[in-house]
Amino acid sequence: WSICGEDGVSLGEAVREQHGKDESVHRCRPPDVVVFPRCVEEVSALAKVCHKHRLPIIPFGTGTGLEGGVGAMKGGVCFSLRNMEQVLDLHPEDFDVTVEPGVTRKTLNAYLRDTGLWFPIDPGADASLCGMAATSASGTNAVRYGTMRENVINLEVVLADGSVVHTAGKGRRPRYSPGKSGYNLTNLFVGSEGTLGIITKTTLRLYGIPEAMVSAVCSFPSVQAAVDSTVQTLQAGVPIARIEFLDDVMIDACNRFSSLSYPVTPTLFLEFHGSEQSLEEQVKTAEDITQSNGGSDFQWARDTETRNRLWKARHDAWYAALALRPGCKAYSTDVCVPLSRLPQIIVETKEDLIENRLTGPIAGHVGDGNFHCLMVVDPNDPEEMHRVHLFTERLARRALAMDGTCTGEHGVGLGKRALLCEEMGPVGIQVMQSLKDALDPNNLMNPGKILQREEP
Amino acid sequence: WSICGEDGVSLGEAVREQHGKDESVHRCRPPDVVVFPRCVEEVSALAKVCHKHRLPIIPFGTGTGLEGGVGAMKGGVCFSLRNMEQVLDLHPEDFDVTVEPGVTRKTLNAYLRDTGLWFPIDPGADASLCGMAATSASGTNAVRYGTMRENVINLEVVLADGSVVHTAGKGRRPRYSPGKSGYNLTNLFVGSEGTLGIITKTTLRLYGIPEAMVSAVCSFPSVQAAVDSTVQTLQAGVPIARIEFLDDVMIDACNRFSSLSYPVTPTLFLEFHGSEQSLEEQVKTAEDITQSNGGSDFQWARDTETRNRLWKARHDAWYAALALRPGCKAYSTDVCVPLSRLPQIIVETKEDLIENRLTGPIAGHVGDGNFHCLMVVDPNDPEEMHRVHLFTERLARRALAMDGTCTGEHGVGLGKRALLCEEMGPVGIQVMQSLKDALDPNNLMNPGKILQREEP
Repeated sequence: WSICGEDGVSLGEAVREQHGKDESVHRCRPPDVVVFPRCVEEVSALAKVCHKHRLPIIPFGTGTGLEGGVGAMKGGVCFSLRNMEQVLDLHPEDFDVTVEPGVTRKTLNAYLRDTGLWFPIDPGADASLCGMAATSASGTNAVRYGTMRENVINLEVVLADGSVVHTAGKGRRPRYSPGKSGYNLTNLFVGSEGTLGIITKTTLRLYGIPEAMVSAVCSFPSVQAAVDSTVQTLQAGVPIARIEFLDDVMIDACNRFSSLSYPVTPTLFLEFHGSEQSLEEQVKTAEDITQSNGGSDFQWARDTETRNRLWKARHDAWYAALALRPGCKAYSTDVCVPLSRLPQIIVETKEDLIENRLTGPIAGHVGDGNFHCLMVVDPNDPEEMHRVHLFTERLARRALAMDGTCTGEHGVGLGKRALLCEEMGPVGIQVMQSLKDALDPNNLMNPGKILQREEP
Repeated sequence: WSICGEDGVSLGEAVREQHGKDESVHRCRPPDVVVFPRCVEEVSALAKVCHKHRLPIIPFGTGTGLEGGVGAMKGGVCFSLRNMEQVLDLHPEDFDVTVEPGVTRKTLNAYLRDTGLWFPIDPGADASLCGMAATSASGTNAVRYGTMRENVINLEVVLADGSVVHTAGKGRRPRYSPGKSGYNLTNLFVGSEGTLGIITKTTLRLYGIPEAMVSAVCSFPSVQAAVDSTVQTLQAGVPIARIEFLDDVMIDACNRFSSLSYPVTPTLFLEFHGSEQSLEEQVKTAEDITQSNGGSDFQWARDTETRNRLWKARHDAWYAALALRPGCKAYSTDVCVPLSRLPQIIVETKEDLIENRLTGPIAGHVGDGNFHCLMVVDPNDPEEMHRVHLFTERLARRALAMDGTCTGEHGVGLGKRALLCEEMGPVGIQVMQSLKDALDPNNLMNPGKILQREEP
């Protein structure tokens, strides 16, 4: 979930700036130059110039990331890829398409409208698909369709020295290629956040638009009941397309912001995809499970308009949270844990928020064990900023202690580099650093992100 | 599909040996020493000794690979991991389990029997699960459940210098971790064929055993009709669990070997998993499609015994092929292409086989665009061996020309290193080599596999 409007603030940066802990890290650090290449040849030529003059390169798609990934920490050249906006090589019969970095997920789905196909990965923001590959985005549909990791078939990448590599070989698009033909370069670059190269084309796996879709809302007496329902629905093998949790604070904010009137209790938004017949079966199983956990009757959203309204409310949660405290800024932090640990971590996190007098509605892709705290914070109150900072560290460490990860889908960027070290351990970080050094020996590609070491 | 009995012969090796093209490559090259460590600490200590004395390390699971991956090309120490055979940390509620390298897929599924869970990836052979991770195995169920790439959550790996890394952090097991928390190390080691490290633990994603399963056999008037049915079934969104193609020569061989009596025409073996109700719907859609393509009525295998007999016949295809020419050896080669290119490549390949007087029944996981030619060849006839060698190169290049890959699921090993260069291009190979050099600077880990360069 990476909606980030102009109101977004990278907490790590802001806190460090205000506390003066790390002079080299700044909020909103602009590059020295922005270039707007129109094709891979121009990207390559520009990268060669940067390489020759040892200038940092910061790839830029739509800037919707949440962990400070596009900040120019050491100045340098921002490669804005918005002018590369072609949809290339659509193969409907093979369920694949190739896009340039200026193509966003909404643009692609509009382009596909008449083909009966769609690309389901939906992180909330209308992000660039190449940027989504760079950050390994997931989002509300991941529980059924997987993340970018499972849906990128091939990448064209310009490396630090300006050479161009096709991670699965040029033009190749087998259904399951990566990993068979030598090392899996595709999945090394997926999630590398611009630190290993500039993604200039992404070949994606497409899906048939389901015959039918239906959404529903279900209210629960407790967090435990909502999460138990999620776990049991997955255990029952229901191929649910979306299952989103909103805590009482979040649903209250959504009610106000989007003029809805759902009960102010822990809530699930659900969506089912399939044939009419299989939908009926899925819904019946899910309803049996939610009701056995004390859930309310489903409130249905069957027609497209009502469904869109529901999911717009979910995607607007960021703005709904902001509206809770006018004049404040929002900072979204997320973690991921094994499904069975979800109730405990959410309950403990809510207690932590209350104890520390923080506003942090919770929403998340609970089917993946992933949830977000939307921290609404007064950026002019250093004491509150500090409390938020300590809270997010406690949240991440709570997840790590439960066999989870410090970042669910936002990536590492700047904000979570120290936590990544705790998560991976020294040998893991050393392996990552040696890969970085191998592909970018001069540390020119998006320097300072993911890994903390400044210079090789 | 990597069944390889004692009758298996790596063609590349055999041909090179007989033609003297590459003196450094030999058939069945034994290591100098075999060690049998019992735990990761022993693997690490032994690797440190090898590192100190610059001895090559060849990891060995069950030896069921098909591309010569366990040959000790430069002598050295074979690490047989059969004594590390514990199933660890089963978390049924989170659908994950961790296994040591001595655990095979059948052992794991026997262990899981009472939990309602299973691990569906099935390459045919009863391979070691850590070995399956090392080669990124797929197999008959991949069309529904994905390959090892999608189902490995974490790996414990001993690196060339003896240090131990956990690719997703020690003990971590989130549903979708890899790729979010820094570089996706898990999928770098999946498919690395022992050339980057020794896999000593694999954490796997498990699935609920489907409520119902049913298999069917359908005969077709032509290859085109069978493959068109496959493509249309997938396009219709049927979540089919297995869809296996056998050409007329293959089904004839299976009939003889397994005492079956299917019509000797292009054939599909199908399997459906789901609830009783969804099964009915899946089968109806698939039957409508096959019949519209001129397919026969489905011959059903509903009870477990009949189903097992059917799939045993499919898995015994290797032996069935061998039985076509007693005294000969079999060599299985495979490629992968986009679905829409399958009919053309299979038809052209059959013509090629006939023109060149070769015995090569065809069988494959057509839902993945992947198929195998089971070459049955007289190893004492150098002229025939040479013809087979040229044929497999033509087959791989035919796949490459159709946007496909030179290896579907067998990996690169020794046999396909030259073809990998054609598939990836020079920059891709250079990136792979730089990763190899970064993690194994002395080229000790399974040297000579995947990449051709002998010394850094």
